[in-house]
Amino acid sequence: MSDWNPLLYSRFETERTRPAAELLARVPLAAPRRIVDLGCGPGNSTELLARRYPSARIAGIDASPAMLAAARERLPALTFVERDIAQWAPAEPVDLLFANASLHWVPDHARLIPRLLEALTPGGVLAIQMPDNLDEPSHALMRETAADPRFAARLGEPSRLPRRLLSAPQYYDLLAPHALVEVWRTTYYHPLAGAAAILEWLRSSGLMPYLEALGPPLQELYLSEYERRIDAAYPARSDGARLLVFPRLFIIAARRAPLPAGGLPR
Amino acid sequence: MSDWNPLLYSRFETERTRPAAELLARVPLAAPRRIVDLGCGPGNSTELLARRYPSARIAGIDASPAMLAAARERLPALTFVERDIAQWAPAEPVDLLFANASLHWVPDHARLIPRLLEALTPGGVLAIQMPDNLDEPSHALMRETAADPRFAARLGEPSRLPRRLLSAPQYYDLLAPHALVEVWRTTYYHPLAGAAAILEWLRSSGLMPYLEALGPPLQELYLSEYERRIDAAYPARSDGARLLVFPRLFIIAARRAPLPAGGLPR
Repeated sequence: MSDWNPLLYSRFETERTRPAAELLARVPLAAPRRIVDLGCGPGNSTELLARRYPSARIAGIDASPAMLAAARERLPALTFVERDIAQWAPAEPVDLLFANASLHWVPDHARLIPRLLEALTPGGVLAIQMPDNLDEPSHALMRETAADPRFAARLGEPSRLPRRLLSAPQYYDLLAPHALVEVWRTTYYHPLAGAAAILEWLRSSGLMPYLEALGPPLQELYLSEYERRIDAAYPARSDGARLLVFPRLFIIAARRAPLPAGGLPR
Repeated sequence: MSDWNPLLYSRFETERTRPAAELLARVPLAAPRRIVDLGCGPGNSTELLARRYPSARIAGIDASPAMLAAARERLPALTFVERDIAQWAPAEPVDLLFANASLHWVPDHARLIPRLLEALTPGGVLAIQMPDNLDEPSHALMRETAADPRFAARLGEPSRLPRRLLSAPQYYDLLAPHALVEVWRTTYYHPLAGAAAILEWLRSSGLMPYLEALGPPLQELYLSEYERRIDAAYPARSDGARLLVFPRLFIIAARRAPLPAGGLPR
């Protein structure tokens, strides 16, 4: 997938930062010393971490050079490192692993989640927030539009799509034997000005794999076909706004010490 | 319906206060002068309001004498008044109307919500949180058990049941022409020790109308039939806990000034 666009992504920064703030508000740590922001994007979540924990050593990890550049510009005093989360492991255990809107791009959570838990100090906290919207019209209509023969041949299987999450109880099952766990799922209803605003929101995230695989000539046709469907699926409300329905899953796990010798089963 | 039991209700006070705190966190007011806590229960939500707004005039309204007594004991400096929300109207407009886990007992939201909006000062805020769990197994199984012929004859139509909510977009539609509106819906997954703990949670709220209508001799039989179904519907997780799945709807509406002459249409 080509690189992310930090400017476009940040256009809805207020809405995109709120879940990070709500996740952070539930982290039961007074003064973690080492924090890693896994999938830090343009640094909006990292900034929240630095504000709450000003004396912590904080590092941001992301696979996108453009996002890292934006994060470094925003927070010059912190460390930002280019790394794929699927491959990442810390040099030494961390007290808080914060993953805001990033793990849904990483495969195989049944193996990933225990591995992240092992990266924590005893008593350390894993805090996760992930979009859980693949069954919403916003994303179902991406797939429906992609099945149109004009696009299907060219698309094949887009190189990288967000992953279908496990259920909330399944995440609980993975973590509860080794951690105190809190799970919740919030659906936000974002009032947006029209179908075009919904596209603008999704262009910098869920639509990216499709647009990249199609290439410039077909992109515009795909977007106009998709916008027509979005316009019908999100009718105007009493004030003319469209409500973008956006469910997100939240997990807080405080690791019990010690873990079984030899690590967690997976 | 007989009176509420503040002690039993407060046994899960941490879990029951969290939604009130999350609702309050989104109230965009720095210093409201007059606040009403609509359906204040034992005063746990009122206490949050008093802590955030120590110089406001705060009154709690509830229909339950037992709940009001518990609230007065907790917060002797505040005013608590016995009143049915369906009949309530303020003597003068208020800056913040806070309704935590109360309006789902009040009928006809299409008329109620505009009426509450009219009770606000210009710029005033209506903040609502309501359980939205009638379609969860916890409540569907109350109805299923009640349909058992041993109970159905005696039950008839229980005197007072929680109301089915409107959808989130429907609340948005009611409010958006007259207010800046924020709506979200959070599903909590509460780890409880077993089926008996789920019953204990619901005994002081959703189960009350059924238990009261049945009377003492049939109550125990109803509870044991219901517990058997709950035990099957909420299987033990990896640590033995049961996850009580509990969705709640949240609404924040900041009134635009002025409202149309003659009030809102309803």
